[in-house]
Amino acid sequence: MTSLTPVVHHALSIERHNVEQQQSPEPEFHVTNQRANWVLNSSDPPGFSQQIFGLIKKNILPPRNNTPSSSSSSQKEQPPSARLIAVLRSVFPVLSWGRNYKASKFKNDLIAGLTLASLSIPQSIGYAALANLDPQYGLYGSVVPPLIYSVMGTSQELAIGPVAVVSLLISSMISKLVDPMADPVSYRKLVFTVTFFAGSFQALLGLLRLGFLIEFLSHAAIVGFMAGAAIVIGLQQLKSLLGISHFTTKTDVISVLGAVAKSLHTSWYPLNFVLGCSFLIFILITRFIGKRNKKLFWLPAISPVISVILSTLIVYLTRADDHGVKIIKHFKGGLNPSSVNQLEFNGPYVGHAAKIGFICAIIALTEAVAVGRSFASIKGYNLDGNKEMLAMGFMNIAGSMSSCYVATGSFSRTAVNYSAGCESTVSNIVMAITVIISLQLLTKLLYYTPLAILASIILSALPGLIDYNEAYHIWKVDKLDFLACAGAFFGVLFASVEIGLLIAVSISFGRLILNSIKPGIEELGRLPGTDIFCDKAQYPGVVDVSGVRIIRLNSGSFCFANANPIKERITRCVTKENEKEETKKPINGIILDMSSVVSIDSSGILALEEIHTKLYSRNIHLAIANPRWKVIHKLKVGGFIGKIGSHCIFLTVNEAVDACLNPISFGLGNC
Amino acid sequence: MTSLTPVVHHALSIERHNVEQQQSPEPEFHVTNQRANWVLNSSDPPGFSQQIFGLIKKNILPPRNNTPSSSSSSQKEQPPSARLIAVLRSVFPVLSWGRNYKASKFKNDLIAGLTLASLSIPQSIGYAALANLDPQYGLYGSVVPPLIYSVMGTSQELAIGPVAVVSLLISSMISKLVDPMADPVSYRKLVFTVTFFAGSFQALLGLLRLGFLIEFLSHAAIVGFMAGAAIVIGLQQLKSLLGISHFTTKTDVISVLGAVAKSLHTSWYPLNFVLGCSFLIFILITRFIGKRNKKLFWLPAISPVISVILSTLIVYLTRADDHGVKIIKHFKGGLNPSSVNQLEFNGPYVGHAAKIGFICAIIALTEAVAVGRSFASIKGYNLDGNKEMLAMGFMNIAGSMSSCYVATGSFSRTAVNYSAGCESTVSNIVMAITVIISLQLLTKLLYYTPLAILASIILSALPGLIDYNEAYHIWKVDKLDFLACAGAFFGVLFASVEIGLLIAVSISFGRLILNSIKPGIEELGRLPGTDIFCDKAQYPGVVDVSGVRIIRLNSGSFCFANANPIKERITRCVTKENEKEETKKPINGIILDMSSVVSIDSSGILALEEIHTKLYSRNIHLAIANPRWKVIHKLKVGGFIGKIGSHCIFLTVNEAVDACLNPISFGLGNC
Repeated sequence: MTSLTPVVHHALSIERHNVEQQQSPEPEFHVTNQRANWVLNSSDPPGFSQQIFGLIKKNILPPRNNTPSSSSSSQKEQPPSARLIAVLRSVFPVLSWGRNYKASKFKNDLIAGLTLASLSIPQSIGYAALANLDPQYGLYGSVVPPLIYSVMGTSQELAIGPVAVVSLLISSMISKLVDPMADPVSYRKLVFTVTFFAGSFQALLGLLRLGFLIEFLSHAAIVGFMAGAAIVIGLQQLKSLLGISHFTTKTDVISVLGAVAKSLHTSWYPLNFVLGCSFLIFILITRFIGKRNKKLFWLPAISPVISVILSTLIVYLTRADDHGVKIIKHFKGGLNPSSVNQLEFNGPYVGHAAKIGFICAIIALTEAVAVGRSFASIKGYNLDGNKEMLAMGFMNIAGSMSSCYVATGSFSRTAVNYSAGCESTVSNIVMAITVIISLQLLTKLLYYTPLAILASIILSALPGLIDYNEAYHIWKVDKLDFLACAGAFFGVLFASVEIGLLIAVSISFGRLILNSIKPGIEELGRLPGTDIFCDKAQYPGVVDVSGVRIIRLNSGSFCFANANPIKERITRCVTKENEKEETKKPINGIILDMSSVVSIDSSGILALEEIHTKLYSRNIHLAIANPRWKVIHKLKVGGFIGKIGSHCIFLTVNEAVDACLNPISFGLGNC
Repeated sequence: MTSLTPVVHHALSIERHNVEQQQSPEPEFHVTNQRANWVLNSSDPPGFSQQIFGLIKKNILPPRNNTPSSSSSSQKEQPPSARLIAVLRSVFPVLSWGRNYKASKFKNDLIAGLTLASLSIPQSIGYAALANLDPQYGLYGSVVPPLIYSVMGTSQELAIGPVAVVSLLISSMISKLVDPMADPVSYRKLVFTVTFFAGSFQALLGLLRLGFLIEFLSHAAIVGFMAGAAIVIGLQQLKSLLGISHFTTKTDVISVLGAVAKSLHTSWYPLNFVLGCSFLIFILITRFIGKRNKKLFWLPAISPVISVILSTLIVYLTRADDHGVKIIKHFKGGLNPSSVNQLEFNGPYVGHAAKIGFICAIIALTEAVAVGRSFASIKGYNLDGNKEMLAMGFMNIAGSMSSCYVATGSFSRTAVNYSAGCESTVSNIVMAITVIISLQLLTKLLYYTPLAILASIILSALPGLIDYNEAYHIWKVDKLDFLACAGAFFGVLFASVEIGLLIAVSISFGRLILNSIKPGIEELGRLPGTDIFCDKAQYPGVVDVSGVRIIRLNSGSFCFANANPIKERITRCVTKENEKEETKKPINGIILDMSSVVSIDSSGILALEEIHTKLYSRNIHLAIANPRWKVIHKLKVGGFIGKIGSHCIFLTVNEAVDACLNPISFGLGNC
């Protein structure tokens, strides 16, 4: 509280000044000087240690619960038990909404959950194949993670389970370390270890409230990455769709097309292709119908399960598997087995596993949070990013111990869940129970399911990942943003998923750096008849103030990377002007509008000093207008104010202009 | 010219509007709306392709000569020969200043040049030893590069030749590839190749006008790097000072001290130490005298050469080399031999050579431009960074073909040159000629010069590289800046020069990124009795406008990395406010002051749209005040203006406040 005292005191002194001013209007320049003093005498902004402490306090410690129900005035007198309940409620949102849960809601959730399960079962099996795992591991991933999420998650719609992009990440990155065909046991162990790491990173990010890390993939990068991943996933399906036995473990377009071309010369089975394509067309038609008639939303949702049943029957009845149609075959039923003892933390690949886990964690979170947020904003509630991360983290840690691989919120299934009218995460519980029942009873029936059908189910989900319109919109709005998008797209397509991500992140940050250090300056002019000063290029109607140049820095940072170029531009702009327009009144004042400079460093202060020296030697005043809190503090600490004198600092451009036009009365003569 | 037409037209329409306004004052809101229209209807800023083209035009093509003598109005009618002369003058500044060069100036330059030579000869020999080269290569470097610089350079004071830090870079990085003891011929070839690359990079940077690249080493990083390098160089001198034969090729403190400790147990010769230390003390005393009495500036300048002469005599007379005093011995005299056929562009190390060349080029330029600028600003003239780079580039390319290694402007010798009263680069010519004469006549006399003396001469030049005061100043101004400084210092000291540089650059840019994406918002309030709106935290005297919150973004970029956190803060700030202060008037308007946002990307626009949607659902108006040219353009192109309606855009915060207080008359009712 003591640190507030000078602030309060200062506020009082300003109030008093205002009262005095109203009582006896003082000469204009006095008021202006007084205002300039406010700039100089404002209290110091929070220091480095205070900032760090504040950051820790805000990020690490849990915030006070701000929900209306608990924000009563008697919060401080809460007994420990009430606090415990508040913490529990914060970690398990089910405790809050569960008490108001009604039978009518459950009816909706039941329908949504069953619809979801009918889509989830075939998709999960397909994604498991994409991740180079046996089919049951996909189904396992639709049991434990959704159950955990349903008690910890804050999204009502998110459908949890294996997703395409993460399956691709898992298979493409882990296959480089261990060959899933040659050594499936080691491969599986590594998958569970990666899942454990991914879950741990997600939980850690949530606990430390470091959710902002997932913002580092820009919107444009995600659009490009998803589109590239969709095409890569689609190409991977050619293996099942053509019934090819020998395929490449690489994921780039050139390797995959090369492998396909090679196989087309030797051995492939057209029956697979015919079967897959027919059912793909069937699924796409049902989707089209579903889009035209909103009441038939369930048709595209259950068409995959219908395809599976029909195609399995066809293969069983016609014995097509003897004619080259690849089928699932082995399919272990029963509940998720424990995989705790399959986690390996001291093998040769533990470092790689951690790295892959981190990438999967970020991509999985990005997808889930993006999907969750978009549906939350439709329904008008808020998604707590940090709680989501915690929920995702715990569900994946639990998943890694129960034979699941990284699960997250799926684009396509969440949309189905929403259309089916889900009311809460109970639909995820319904789905999980349905999947458990299927695992117990139905696995034997899936023996004859053709792989081509799984491929066509995956293929049918891919178009949703490619967002042409958004890519075109990005191109229209920002060419460099589009470059990040295209970089991610082509990187994923022609190199690998990691390189695509790396390119996208590098371009996004490179652009950010370029934008922050661009040494731009703008000249301002007065809007005729007002005290408003605007960019001369933006508003051609503004007029110059005779003898004064007003320059605004066009960059948020005035720092090492742009201090010298900015300095040179400012001095050059004065030199040119004074040489060119000999007939006009020569410039005798330069006003630097610092309002947009958010940060300044020692190089920036040095450059300001040099500008001052150079202008001083030409007998030109330098005035600083409207520096921000941190900037004025740095200028004071850095000794700049001491050098140029406090009479050269102004609150507004207008006051600085007045001072430059009447230098004597403002004491600018010495400046 | 056609692209200017809409601008002119627009300007005219504004002028017309102003005239109308003066004739018949219209209602206030009409004027405000009109102003808001200016924001919306301003012409488009230069597009991406125009920017790129402008950048190329500005950077690649040489600028019009802006010196007063040639900026006559008849410039366009210049004959080709006159243009050629202008270009030649621009490349060879000697053609400009040479015509006014007088005998009186030459007298000063002669004295300065001779003084410079007396310091340069022993230093060059010492630095050659530091670079693991024979002594004559140091002297060669004080012949060709200074001669070329004297006709191309723009600095009057810069003393060109080998310098300590670059010698250290050369030896530490090239020794890793080729052992200079085992294979001196290959080592030398590599040194010349590196020099060629360094020169080419420097010339290229100058030609492409990419001088801003050397700004990427922040001031703080340079201070730390130089101090670290000075200590490393000092430690390297222990070899000569203690007369140790077997030394490490590593440069980090631990390796070097380890090697010294090991040698102290086995074989070292105290006589070297006694000799070196005595003369070091002598040089330091002369420097002290020179500082106290400015007239005796020549005393510290010639004390190294005196030390060399005296110590050589002592060794020669006492035959101390038989008692373990290490001497120079072989010393090839004569002019620079050609080294054109020693450049290797297809060996196994050509990639490394290019990398090392790039690092040396940047460090050499950084040192030269920093030294040159500081002396230019004392004398009050401007240093053209791009011309300097071109001059440095050509002098090093020429140097690489005449047995020189990377040369640049030296801190210590430039100061001597300045104190000795040099008037132009002629002092460099005088020095070069003196060195040529020494190479022809004096090399035999240096046979008995003890290595310990060279070490003490280098040691005496090092304190100038360590700037405690500046480091303390940086600490005071900015803790994160100091972290970059300390990172560079300890990186150089305990790892290697490259790692030190890498740490410094990473910290500098990391800080820049953090500063640009910090998701800060500030609430603004009205300065009582004015139309000025200021940060409430900075100016505690400001007051809230009832029912309106004014929020300014505290970040130059509104982009993927901070769009979501900013969005959340803004919406949270509204929610809290409306819940907390139930007695007060609830908020019905949020004004976003965008004046400090320099760039926005598609994520930023998306976030704005989401803010608008969220506020709209709570029946709160969103108004955007004072967007910059590029930002408003992006908002228009991105479709944001179309969504929220053009009546929500305002030129100033004040106008937006007026509109929010009278929503009906401003058409904000629908917003």
